[in-house]
Amino acid sequence: MQAEIITIGDEILIGQVVDTNSAWMAKELNKNGISVSKITSISDQADDIVNTIKAAMNRAPLVLMTGGLGPTNDDITKKTLSDYFGMCLIQDDELYRKIQDRLAKYGIPMNRFNCEQALVPDGAKIIPNNFGSAPCMWFEKDNRVLASMPGVPFEMKGIMQNGLIERIKSHFATPEIVHKTIMTEGIGESVLADMLTDWEENLPKDMKLAYLPSPGKVRLRLSITGNDKDELKQMVQLEVEKLQKILPDNIFAYDDTAIEERVAELLLAKNKTIGTAESCTGGYIAHLITSNVGSSAYFKGSVVSYSNEIKENVLGVNAKDLEVHGAVSKEVVEQMALGAKRVLSTDYALATSGIAGPDGGTDEKPVGTVWIALAGDFGVKSEKLELYKVRERNIKISAFRVLNLLRKELEK
Amino acid sequence: MQAEIITIGDEILIGQVVDTNSAWMAKELNKNGISVSKITSISDQADDIVNTIKAAMNRAPLVLMTGGLGPTNDDITKKTLSDYFGMCLIQDDELYRKIQDRLAKYGIPMNRFNCEQALVPDGAKIIPNNFGSAPCMWFEKDNRVLASMPGVPFEMKGIMQNGLIERIKSHFATPEIVHKTIMTEGIGESVLADMLTDWEENLPKDMKLAYLPSPGKVRLRLSITGNDKDELKQMVQLEVEKLQKILPDNIFAYDDTAIEERVAELLLAKNKTIGTAESCTGGYIAHLITSNVGSSAYFKGSVVSYSNEIKENVLGVNAKDLEVHGAVSKEVVEQMALGAKRVLSTDYALATSGIAGPDGGTDEKPVGTVWIALAGDFGVKSEKLELYKVRERNIKISAFRVLNLLRKELEK
Repeated sequence: MQAEIITIGDEILIGQVVDTNSAWMAKELNKNGISVSKITSISDQADDIVNTIKAAMNRAPLVLMTGGLGPTNDDITKKTLSDYFGMCLIQDDELYRKIQDRLAKYGIPMNRFNCEQALVPDGAKIIPNNFGSAPCMWFEKDNRVLASMPGVPFEMKGIMQNGLIERIKSHFATPEIVHKTIMTEGIGESVLADMLTDWEENLPKDMKLAYLPSPGKVRLRLSITGNDKDELKQMVQLEVEKLQKILPDNIFAYDDTAIEERVAELLLAKNKTIGTAESCTGGYIAHLITSNVGSSAYFKGSVVSYSNEIKENVLGVNAKDLEVHGAVSKEVVEQMALGAKRVLSTDYALATSGIAGPDGGTDEKPVGTVWIALAGDFGVKSEKLELYKVRERNIKISAFRVLNLLRKELEK
Repeated sequence: MQAEIITIGDEILIGQVVDTNSAWMAKELNKNGISVSKITSISDQADDIVNTIKAAMNRAPLVLMTGGLGPTNDDITKKTLSDYFGMCLIQDDELYRKIQDRLAKYGIPMNRFNCEQALVPDGAKIIPNNFGSAPCMWFEKDNRVLASMPGVPFEMKGIMQNGLIERIKSHFATPEIVHKTIMTEGIGESVLADMLTDWEENLPKDMKLAYLPSPGKVRLRLSITGNDKDELKQMVQLEVEKLQKILPDNIFAYDDTAIEERVAELLLAKNKTIGTAESCTGGYIAHLITSNVGSSAYFKGSVVSYSNEIKENVLGVNAKDLEVHGAVSKEVVEQMALGAKRVLSTDYALATSGIAGPDGGTDEKPVGTVWIALAGDFGVKSEKLELYKVRERNIKISAFRVLNLLRKELEK
């Protein structure tokens, strides 16, 4: 089954907000056997909204819409939808009380914007929003469904997970889709494509392969649609096993498992702890690790040593080495890793020191020169990276590479 | 003038990749007086591509497209475009040599995928890609323009900035658009809307106002289109000044300046340094600060003290206070801030300690309880936050609030 997504809001069209909702919704729909054929972002204008809905409902049996349901004057979606489906707005007493209660908790009285939020189109089914005032409205017309949700990401997610997906599944009969993503590192896209030509040409007829390159890695996604989920899974698994033989060293995880999640699994399994000493990554590795729920079980802390003072005073890097070799050097990054392991009392410590850019490079050490190190019971090892001119990219790739160094060590 | 954006790639439709390109392109176009009326994401299928291009070029004089230009088999965009515009693919010798040179640097020989990358439609103008193999192709048909770029964000950005925008400007005569964004914190969207009713109703007829809420803040965006840029700017400035009088304490920055950028400006102006001691934010504040180019001028480092051991041993938090009050307490967060200021030798230090969730809460300290602190020459001050159940959101809001505490201190 196919669905379309429509996101409403001038803020997306002027580029002030990145539309993260669509990707999240698409993923959820896919998991449930519904593929998204089109995503459209439009402005807060009634005629645009009507034209886009009409076209989308013409093409797809299900249309999910987000945005335009806030309490303020620039949001006209609810009125437009109500008119389009030939309904009128009436007060939902339960919703009114819910909004009143929510505001009362903060000592705020209902104002006219809040009152308007309690109005709903009289023919729409209402799916509650547990994290905000605007509920989901479910419209049916000519055997087609349109569901409208607020654009605030966590409100939309709450609605999808606590009612909408279930209603979609019970309303439509959906085929199965199986995706499998294989995360590879260390080989560029075109070399990889060349290595995989034979395998790719011999994939089962209905199986699709996509290459998804991103900084430091290439993800390979296999997809197949059918009726018997177990059979589809087996077909995919067979191809994954063939791939493992072609790429014995370059697969670091599956199914969009991030490197920090893979490292977390391995640390937990081996009951080991970790810390970081970060210069050019500036706390980004610590942030990645602590974004995982439950990271306190294996992560103890970090020293972000942006200044040389802190490298010396907190991590115990030798002042002479800092002077002779510079902060971006094998000598310093290895002492940083060893220092972090000691100061933070961990089993492993990761360290980075480099020139993230866009300025600060020299002939000998151009922008993008980064040293990474891993300390453990084996001692310490390090690698030099020659990266790019873009700061954000250098920070991300350095973090990825040093986490990958640890992943390889833990998988030994 | 209006433009549409089309992004191609199954990876967007299955939600594996968030479409950040569109927002970036929309922003660039807006700066140059071109407003985006629609953004559409579609799959790597020839008929979808053709139908969507046809409809978009029917509505808008300019269509920008990204994606589908990689070297691998799942990318069919170039062939489809060439057929659609009635052209054939010929080898671009300069491009061939460029690809060859790029690969030679890594010691990789040309393979058939790379050779295909050197083919271009014979009637398209070519705008070079300085960061990758696939160039931008500029097609003209019936006074309409379509420009196709690769989907890798930094390649697309390079093309836009080093040729495409210039060509668009010289090809079309464009009106001026002025946007001004006022960043507010501390007042929720509907209360704010109520406070601003009179002001909003008296805005000049052609001026549009949008409310853009996000965790911890509401951005207000004023927009106006016309011919005389200076006049438009003055009109907007007049309204901003009125707003400053209505909201004397809640405006923290303008024009999407992030709180960490505003803090950076203030620290540089006052020649002060900063460090952080982070527990629940796990290095995220350090990461935000060090994402700014040139942050080493005011940022010295951080201690991410996830474990109590590190709070005690590195930051010098009193063991008794940790035991009696717990890590998430006024006593501990204030000692963390003071400890960081001392250990990192900075003028100011920020600290956070809280329960980011989703687990780990108690009746007394539920998930979302966060203490933040600021240490400076005045001593130390702290605040208790009562946030939400969502980890990512709690980390972001805590970081925002403590940076805002510093912003207020620096603006005194």
